[in-house]
Order: sequence, then C-alpha cells, then structure tokens
Amino acid sequence: MKAAILALGSELLGTIKLDRNSLRITAELEHFGVELIGKSTIGDDETTIGDALKHWMEHADVIITTGGLGPTTDDLTRSAVATALGRTLSQDPELEAQLRRRFASLGRQMAEVNRRQAEIIEGGTTLSNARGTAPGMRIDHEGTTIFLFPGVPREADYMIEAHLRPWLQEHASANGITETIEHALLKIACLPESEVEQRILPAYEEFGREWITILGAPGEVTLHLKAQGEKPDCEKKLQTMQERLRELVGDSVFTNRANASLAHVVGELLTEKTKTIATAESCTGGLLAERLTRVPGSSAYFLGGLATYSYESKTDLLGIPTALILEHGAVSEPISNAMAQAVKAKYGSDYGIGITGVAGPTGGTDEKPIGTVHITLAGPAEADIEHQLKRFPGDRDRVRLQSTQWALHMLRKRLNLTQCG
Amino acid sequence: MKAAILALGSELLGTIKLDRNSLRITAELEHFGVELIGKSTIGDDETTIGDALKHWMEHADVIITTGGLGPTTDDLTRSAVATALGRTLSQDPELEAQLRRRFASLGRQMAEVNRRQAEIIEGGTTLSNARGTAPGMRIDHEGTTIFLFPGVPREADYMIEAHLRPWLQEHASANGITETIEHALLKIACLPESEVEQRILPAYEEFGREWITILGAPGEVTLHLKAQGEKPDCEKKLQTMQERLRELVGDSVFTNRANASLAHVVGELLTEKTKTIATAESCTGGLLAERLTRVPGSSAYFLGGLATYSYESKTDLLGIPTALILEHGAVSEPISNAMAQAVKAKYGSDYGIGITGVAGPTGGTDEKPIGTVHITLAGPAEADIEHQLKRFPGDRDRVRLQSTQWALHMLRKRLNLTQCG
Repeated sequence: MKAAILALGSELLGTIKLDRNSLRITAELEHFGVELIGKSTIGDDETTIGDALKHWMEHADVIITTGGLGPTTDDLTRSAVATALGRTLSQDPELEAQLRRRFASLGRQMAEVNRRQAEIIEGGTTLSNARGTAPGMRIDHEGTTIFLFPGVPREADYMIEAHLRPWLQEHASANGITETIEHALLKIACLPESEVEQRILPAYEEFGREWITILGAPGEVTLHLKAQGEKPDCEKKLQTMQERLRELVGDSVFTNRANASLAHVVGELLTEKTKTIATAESCTGGLLAERLTRVPGSSAYFLGGLATYSYESKTDLLGIPTALILEHGAVSEPISNAMAQAVKAKYGSDYGIGITGVAGPTGGTDEKPIGTVHITLAGPAEADIEHQLKRFPGDRDRVRLQSTQWALHMLRKRLNLTQCG
Repeated sequence: MKAAILALGSELLGTIKLDRNSLRITAELEHFGVELIGKSTIGDDETTIGDALKHWMEHADVIITTGGLGPTTDDLTRSAVATALGRTLSQDPELEAQLRRRFASLGRQMAEVNRRQAEIIEGGTTLSNARGTAPGMRIDHEGTTIFLFPGVPREADYMIEAHLRPWLQEHASANGITETIEHALLKIACLPESEVEQRILPAYEEFGREWITILGAPGEVTLHLKAQGEKPDCEKKLQTMQERLRELVGDSVFTNRANASLAHVVGELLTEKTKTIATAESCTGGLLAERLTRVPGSSAYFLGGLATYSYESKTDLLGIPTALILEHGAVSEPISNAMAQAVKAKYGSDYGIGITGVAGPTGGTDEKPIGTVHITLAGPAEADIEHQLKRFPGDRDRVRLQSTQWALHMLRKRLNLTQCG
C-alpha cells in the first residue's frame, strides 16, 4: 500500500513554517507497513490543490491532506477536493446542528462563516474532531482513499489517532499486511559526526545505508535506526544493529532511550550510586547547573552551582587565592582544578566540577584562543582530580554547550567505573 | 513568475528529517518577487520523481530541485529528469576531468562511482559547486527553467547564491519585475499567544491576515510581518505595520531585531545604564544565569549567580535564616525576597533576582501546585523589592523557561523606567 501527504496552506510556503504534521502521519503509516512515496505542500489556490490531489491519486492508494478546513475564505480544501473529484459540495443540516451545539457548549454563538464547516462532499464520511470545530472527511474515489484532516497540530494528532489509525489497522490486516517499520536510536556524546561516520562504516555495509540515519548536534550525535519486516523480526534486527553499533562506536554511546538526555543518564548514575555533585562555572555561566537541574528529581544529587563569572566571585565565593589567578590567569588548569575542589568543599558534595574558558566572541588570545576551555572533575578523595583542556570549534553557544557536554561525559565515564555503594 | 521546489531523497520521507533547503530558496524567490506555488518531497524512485517534475512543469515557470546528485545508485535525479524531459544523459569528458582534478586537490583518488557525477543532460548547462563534488545543472525546457542543486545544505546554499540569485535578478529585471517581498518581526515577552492574537485583531483587519504570522513559544510570541511591492513601499508598509502592532500589543514588545533575545535586550539596558546584576535561583537551577551569560559581553554586568537548590545552600550560601524557611516554606514570597536581597548584597550588584518555585513533575501540593513560582527583583535601594507570584502552565521545562522569562521581563521594564546615569 502506498501513501502521499498533502499539506495545504499558504503559511506553509513562506520562509518560517514547515509542515510537521506529516512526520506524525508518516510514523503511523510506517507502523502499518504503508510506504510514503511523496508529500506536497500547496498554497491556498483551488486549482493547484485539485491538480496536486489528482497527481497523487495516480500514484497512491491513500492520501492524507491537512489544513484548509477552517471557516474563512482562504480555507479551500473542501471545495478544491469536491471539484477535483467531480462531486458536489452541500450543507449538511445534521453536521451544522452538531457544530451549533459545540459552540453553545463553549458558551459562544456560532458565527455565520462557520456554516462552511458543515459542508460535506458527496459520498464522503464525516470524521469527528474532538479538539476543534473543523470536522474531517473520508472519501473513497476510484481506488484511492482520501482523508481530509485539519491542520492545527493537536487537532491533526487527534484525527490521526481516532480515524487514520483504525482505518490503517483494518486495511493492513484485510490486505494481509503484517509488515511494519520499527525504530531505535543510540545517542553518542563528545565524538564528532565525521568520527562516528568513520567508525560505523562497516555497519553501513552490513545493514544497508538506508536503515541508519546520522544526525549531529554540538557535542552529540544520534544514530536513528530503522528496520522493516514482521514485528518480531524488526525487533531482533534492531537489537542486532544496536549491539554492532555500540561495538563500533565504543563507550561514548550513553543511551538508547529517546527521552533520556546525557544529564538524565548522569543523574540516574548519581542516584544509583548515591553520590552528589556541585558545580562552579565561569564561561558556561550556569549552563551545566541548568542542564543537571532540568532533570526531574535532580534535587536528590545536585547540591548547588555557582556561576563565578567575575574574578571577584572566584576569590570571594570560592576562596581561590588572587595570587593563583594572577600567576596562571583565570583560564588555566590550576584555576579549573581549584574551582572544582572549592565548590565540592563548599557544598560538601562527592564530586565537584569546575569549568573556565574563553567562550568568545571576544577575549581570545594567541595563547588562549576562543574555544579554549579547562574542565576539571574533582572526585571524593583529596587528590582525585581529572582535568581536560579542550579547544572547541564554533561560536559562543557551541563552545558553552560542548564544554558542559564534556563535563557531563567525564562524570558519566567516572561513575560507570565506580563500584556501587 | 511562479516557482515550485522539489526536494529529492527517501531520507526526507521518514519521521526525522524535513527538507529545510526550501526555506532558503523561498527567501531568495520572495526577494525577487517570485511566487512559490508549491513544493514536493519525493523518495528515490525515478518514475515518481519524473512524474512530479512533469506535474509542476504544468504550473511553474521555474523549478528548483535539491538532492539526488551524489555518486551512488540511489542518486536518481539526473536520470529521472533526463527521462522525464525525453533528453539523453551522457558522460562529459571535460566535467569528468574537472572532477578528477578536484579529488586530486583534496589528496584523494576519484572512485569509479563518482564518474556518474560527470553525466550531463542534453542541452543543459553545468553549474559549478565550490563546496562539493556534485555539480548542478540548469535546463530550459518548453518555457520552464529547471535547476538541479545538491541536497547537502551548505552546498545548496552555495548554489542558491552563485547560480539561482543571478538568474532571478536577470529574469526579474528582464520581465520588468521590480516587486519584492520584505520581512520584519516583533518579539513579545510574557503575553500568551491567545492574548496577543486578541490584541492584534484590528491589525489583521487593516493589513490583511496573510501578512502577519504569529508564532508562540513558552513566554514569548513572535509576530512575523511581510509586505509585497516596490522595495521602498515595502519598507514603508512594514514600518507602519510595526508601529500599529506596537501600539496594539503595548510595552511587552521588546525588540524588532531577529538576532536579539530578551536577555540580549536586558544586557544592552544594563550596559547603557551601567548597572549590574546577580541571581539566586532555586527551581530554575541556573537557567537565568545561563541565559544572561549566553550574551557576549555579559561579564560587564553579570556579577554572578547561585543555584541554591537545597535548603542548606539557601541558608549556608545566602545566609537566609532557617527559621524563615521553616515558617513560610522554601517556595514563598519572603524567601524569594530574601534570595534576591542576599545575592545582591553578596555580589555587591545593583540588582538581585531571586526565583523559587515548584517546577515539577513532583513536589506540588494543593496550596502550591506545580507551576507555582515566586520571582523577586531587588533594586538598588534597601526597600526596593518587586515580587510576583505566578502559576505557570506546562511541564518542568516550560515552567523553568517562563520563570526566567518573567524575571528578565521584570528587569527590562524596570530598566526602561530608570533614568540614565
């Protein structure tokens, strides 16, 4: 079974918004083994919409449109589809009564323009919309089934679940389709995308390049895996792919859970080992504390953080000797070490992290160019100090993000080494 | 002149990636007054690509395709276009020699598969690609001009600038097109999207709904404005729209600059008035400090921040009496006031901000449900205290983001009231 998606609305043809409803529709199609062969975004023009529909009807068994079901004159989906299919469009008294009741239940009177939303296409089935005033519609026409859904994302979501999913389920089983597409992912910290790509080349060969998508962000790479087949086979295949990729990439893989961030994984390790952490940040100005505390329940292990941005705050709040700063400069190994140790002592935590560097865009020198960052992880014992000097590429935001990513990465690796208890 | 865009590649039909090249192409089209009437994303299938091209040729004067120009067997754009247009595809010795030289200059030998990238469509013009090995192509066919560009974003960007822009310029002036589409924006803090929508209803009436797009994010709404016409008229129209919208929305509009964040604007005000700030954060855990220091040059006014997440850090680091916390609870007006005043004193800053609240997902009570946040801005004078109690909707991330947004908003409004010097 083949599908196409039409996103309708001139606002999706500007320089700002992209149609994102299609991503969720695609997930649903894949789940039932339906292949998406293409998607189009069309502006508010009846002829162009109708022609695009006719074009995709030549190729697809099912077409889902989103948008253009509102009450205003630029909502043209109903009339464009009716004209393209050569069917009439008429006012449905029952649907109009429903709409009026809906408005009344919201304490509002229905405007006259909303009557347009009670127009139905000859032979079509009305699809209820529990989250808005625009009903959807399903039409079977010359072997193609066409779904008209509203474009507002939360309304489209409802329509996908309430109307598309049961239809796909029924038609997949009626057509003996038992194949599905399943997904998995692996998240990798602190390896460049090119390095990950290099390491996983053998997996591209073994599994096929089209089943692995690599997406890079500063300090983090995600491998998106896909498998097609009977459900148990898919799961087995994804399992095999994951194991092989973990083997190739190494211990920079930190999770296979979509909703787990690196800070989340670090938080779980701290909780499991009942350890606590405190942070002292200069160039990252609180970003590490923010990432750690973004995780629900972080109050159990995050004791506190200092953004010691100025010289004074380093000396006053952390008690770092002015002489040490004057001797080595604020961006130096002795200072990041002192920051990590001082903040650990101040909060009485098991671990302390110190970060000091040059995030830019100014402040770089030949010796310490922009992107120079010292990161220190101080552990439970007095002499337990792990220091890294990094030269991060990119602008201020990227330098700051990568600095905190490395700090979390160091902490994660350390906690993985640590015995429980 | 009408245009269509075709994004080619099966990886753009999954659940993860969206074609974003079209946004930059659209900006270029708009600049030269060319109307984008639709765009399609097509998988790696020669027939479907060819049919989509023929479909759009019926409607558009210019078609830009991106993707599918690589060396592998799933790169089908060249052959699909040639077949659709009924033109031959042949190896170009000169282009092949260029490609070999390019690989040599990179210190690599050209693989045999890359020979495919030297295939040209009969009658087409090769377009150089300074950022990759895939050359582009331009073909004039029965009144439609077709551009084939690579899909890698930085390569597509190059092609847009080097090949699409001059062509549009030439054709716009040859066809006497002097119209353009220009953009402007307004950013609004701490008003819900629905409230902004309500306030600007008269502007929809006056200027037309299609020229104003409203985009909402937690704590921030952006109005994107658009005007079409001769360049000076556009600028005048955008100016008028901005003034009217500022009038309707009020002083929550904080900038009309795309690259200026609320923290950026606050930073400029602090710099202008030579004032300094320090922060004490509980539920936001450093997010406010992070946002303030994300701004380049923030060391001039941001003296430091404390993430006082635990009871102990509030008493130990800020010297807030335990009795006060026991009496009112950590999430209370007296505590946020004490945090703001204590951190101001500790760092010797002009302003201090204290934030304490329940970000969730746990910790909510009937009296203090999740989303309850106290925000205090302490000013230069002893008794200068401005407190707000908010109940933010949404999850942990949204509560944290809105809390810091309100803190910045309060500070911005205060600084706007303050006389210079």
